[in-house]
Amino acid sequence: MARSGRRPGATDTRAAILTAAQAEFAAKGYDRATIRGIAAGAKVDPALVHHYFGTKEDLFAASIDLPIRPSELADTVMAEGVESAGRNITTIFFTTWENPVTRAPLLAMLRGAFDTRHGADVLREFFGTAMLGRVAGLIPGPEAEIRVALAVSHLIGVAVLRYVLGFPSLSDVPVARLIDEMSPKIQSYFA
Amino acid sequence: MARSGRRPGATDTRAAILTAAQAEFAAKGYDRATIRGIAAGAKVDPALVHHYFGTKEDLFAASIDLPIRPSELADTVMAEGVESAGRNITTIFFTTWENPVTRAPLLAMLRGAFDTRHGADVLREFFGTAMLGRVAGLIPGPEAEIRVALAVSHLIGVAVLRYVLGFPSLSDVPVARLIDEMSPKIQSYFA
Repeated sequence: MARSGRRPGATDTRAAILTAAQAEFAAKGYDRATIRGIAAGAKVDPALVHHYFGTKEDLFAASIDLPIRPSELADTVMAEGVESAGRNITTIFFTTWENPVTRAPLLAMLRGAFDTRHGADVLREFFGTAMLGRVAGLIPGPEAEIRVALAVSHLIGVAVLRYVLGFPSLSDVPVARLIDEMSPKIQSYFA
Repeated sequence: MARSGRRPGATDTRAAILTAAQAEFAAKGYDRATIRGIAAGAKVDPALVHHYFGTKEDLFAASIDLPIRPSELADTVMAEGVESAGRNITTIFFTTWENPVTRAPLLAMLRGAFDTRHGADVLREFFGTAMLGRVAGLIPGPEAEIRVALAVSHLIGVAVLRYVLGFPSLSDVPVARLIDEMSPKIQSYFA
């Protein structure tokens, strides 16, 4: 999307970087993809990639149209303390999936994780480390990583049944109802 | 697997029926596959299909090496009353996934559900209707179908993270620990 105030060519440069990033992440997975390689693919200086997109995490999030920066997710989830973390993460998750713009790349990513080794690597490395690892770091108590992974598995499972398989009993439920039903279960893993 | 006491040829006939069933379910999905079509594919009388495998549900379960008959799942889950239903279904689920013999066809089925429309149909029609519909029929309270679907989504989500994506924090956990952690959450949907 073009933004006002950018110099001519910025939109093209951004688009070229995003296209190169999508290709690099698809070919190498998340961990092995590099800003340098993406810059080479887009025929720009690596500094320009950082200028437009920040870190590799942020660039990946932008390449799949994720509406939230990974580095901000954990803080947003924990914004009102751990007592609200379950409802916050559930709300962010379903808001992202209900938006057709973000649902398409998430679905593609989930399908990719089943199809290819790299696809599974991307999902595990990016969501597992960059996003959930940070959330786990803010959750009190022992073995927070396991508890956060279990909580997220519930969210992903509902996404699979609702958006991929189209289970009638979950596809027909309004999303606000899903959030109400699931938030306490997600919360029970957090505190 | 050959069983003692069968007349010569029975093993071959069973194998031919299973092969035809796998092809028919893959081509048509679960609902549109018929015993008659499977019998034609195996070049046997439909009565012989029923003789060896019972209902279409049971034949499908056999075709994916499922260790439990769909018609028996609900009763097994509810055997000690609804108070134990969460732990029972969680234990049955992970016991099936931890066994390499049954894990392979389940993984193939889950992958198939992401790849093809038919694959998604099979998973939804068979597990949604034949298996979970029956469990929901035995769970007290309103909208049991939604609650059972939510419970099962959690199980499926953990299967995705543990067996497909290989999330370290879930892959390294002993299955007994997973069952202990998850059973109360699954149970909370049931009663």
